[in-house]
Amino acid sequence: MKRCNVAVVGATGAVGREMLNILEERDFPYDDLKLLATERSAGTIMTVKGEEYEVEVTTPESFEDVDIALFSAGSTASENLAEEVVSRGAVMIDNSSAFRMDDDVPLVVPEVNPEDIAQHEGIIANPNCSTIQMVVPLKPIYDKVGIERIVVSTYQAVSGTGKDAMDELVEQSEKILNEEEIDPEVYPEQIAFNALPHIDVFFDNDYTKEEMKMVNETQKIMNDDSIKVTATTVRIPVLIGHGESVNLELGSKLEAEEAKRLLSETEGVKVIDNPDELAYPTQIDSEEDDDVLVGRIRVDETLEAGLNLWIVANNLRKGAALNTIQIAEKLIETEF
Amino acid sequence: MKRCNVAVVGATGAVGREMLNILEERDFPYDDLKLLATERSAGTIMTVKGEEYEVEVTTPESFEDVDIALFSAGSTASENLAEEVVSRGAVMIDNSSAFRMDDDVPLVVPEVNPEDIAQHEGIIANPNCSTIQMVVPLKPIYDKVGIERIVVSTYQAVSGTGKDAMDELVEQSEKILNEEEIDPEVYPEQIAFNALPHIDVFFDNDYTKEEMKMVNETQKIMNDDSIKVTATTVRIPVLIGHGESVNLELGSKLEAEEAKRLLSETEGVKVIDNPDELAYPTQIDSEEDDDVLVGRIRVDETLEAGLNLWIVANNLRKGAALNTIQIAEKLIETEF
Repeated sequence: MKRCNVAVVGATGAVGREMLNILEERDFPYDDLKLLATERSAGTIMTVKGEEYEVEVTTPESFEDVDIALFSAGSTASENLAEEVVSRGAVMIDNSSAFRMDDDVPLVVPEVNPEDIAQHEGIIANPNCSTIQMVVPLKPIYDKVGIERIVVSTYQAVSGTGKDAMDELVEQSEKILNEEEIDPEVYPEQIAFNALPHIDVFFDNDYTKEEMKMVNETQKIMNDDSIKVTATTVRIPVLIGHGESVNLELGSKLEAEEAKRLLSETEGVKVIDNPDELAYPTQIDSEEDDDVLVGRIRVDETLEAGLNLWIVANNLRKGAALNTIQIAEKLIETEF
Repeated sequence: MKRCNVAVVGATGAVGREMLNILEERDFPYDDLKLLATERSAGTIMTVKGEEYEVEVTTPESFEDVDIALFSAGSTASENLAEEVVSRGAVMIDNSSAFRMDDDVPLVVPEVNPEDIAQHEGIIANPNCSTIQMVVPLKPIYDKVGIERIVVSTYQAVSGTGKDAMDELVEQSEKILNEEEIDPEVYPEQIAFNALPHIDVFFDNDYTKEEMKMVNETQKIMNDDSIKVTATTVRIPVLIGHGESVNLELGSKLEAEEAKRLLSETEGVKVIDNPDELAYPTQIDSEEDDDVLVGRIRVDETLEAGLNLWIVANNLRKGAALNTIQIAEKLIETEF
């Protein structure tokens, strides 16, 4: 694999730190690595592959001589810096939602639509965490029998909101167990020992932005606007790992055993599904596993051709940092 | 309202205690009250409406002179004692799943099918908690436009399993926060900060008993076997209150505003749905509210006529004890 110069923007955040871990774990072939963040985090020393790096403040000049810029610093940072990155000849792989639905920006899950990478004009977008983990196991099913409609309900971890939210869940849980008063800050209501049917802002149609991401991004990644998706996204008191209950209306029948076989053979998917041994995936399982975990695979007899699935993945890794770096690896393979 | 003699079987359990609270709160018109339980709990002194009662061991003779026996002591106790209760002329209102699907046993939610009570032959069954809270808001929608298919994913509290499970969630949460080892006993896997897509035993079709209860009981309560239901039931780390994400395929179109109006006018339902003010129901809201709470009411545009709902209720009260006592109240009205 060819080598290149990499910059990580938002290196000190929850996803940024996970990116550095993954660059190290996968021995990503960079020549030069630059860690960038805001003023507040500049000066932090971080170690990657045994070498120490000082985090620098992100400026337009930071991207001179950079080949790939991995962004996870929020939509505003991505919007403000995109032109600076691209005009210097670097490719931006962006974890924010800023450019995901732009026509000239490929939205990529490497197991699903790697061919879309070639269409980029300087920016490649990484999809939303809940969408990524859903489309990985759906792709082989789509290819085999077609998917006409998806009804998805999510069980999402607080780490999707960030480090502050993880702290809030821990602190609130402690206070409630000690019978102390709580004072929600990150979420509008108590998250410990509760569930909030609300992720991201509400749109005029009363769906949330998270729900509409699942609709629009799924169609774009699968390159098929005819797939119907309706979503209800819910935050639950889990630190890491998103769960999804997915009901599929298929183009033609698929038996549960055949679905299990198909998914077992799919790159990036692990089937954990043995009711006799009470084997099914849970969020805790996803903490140490980079695969998308699938279980509770059952035919839905209320449809001509229907299937129910329970899908779990680590939202910080496959849902964010890992997918971003997998895109970078594919890009190097084909372009550098 | 006429008075009668009441026995509560399983009086010291989580649901039994809630029954006693509700008998008191609603000033239920009993003449004589008898608290029954197993050997282990006999002798316990419990106070209802300011009067002390000693819990007695349940025997066949316990039901002499009883008019209504409220059972919440598990399926085996209900099966073993049913004939003893009925042959003595008492009516058994049973919270277990023992008789729910028997043809000669009405399965009743008073807001939905009170007329079925009249058909009883000595036993009336109280439905499963997740089914009760779903059918209450679905009934007015069914009456207005018809319901053809239901896709439901649940977010269920551990109190559905019982007092031991509540203790396990609290203890596990404390241990995890203190970074101590945990050793799951009530559930097969860690429930604190996790979600388990598994409630009750697995059947041969790979659905759980809880999931099939939602299918079969919904059809029976609604008196319509043509309603298609598919369910995925999930346990989450919440103490009290079940949440449900419900997707409906309707017989004909119903606008969200019309659905809100209809539900607002329904007995036993409270609509909490104002996205502008981030108002939606959560499990914590259900702890102090006997209504079934409904929010996130949205048209599902992927269907000719579709609707998404988020339904929350207190599983120990409306899902169990309260519904049982509401059945008893209706029975007294019509029969005594």
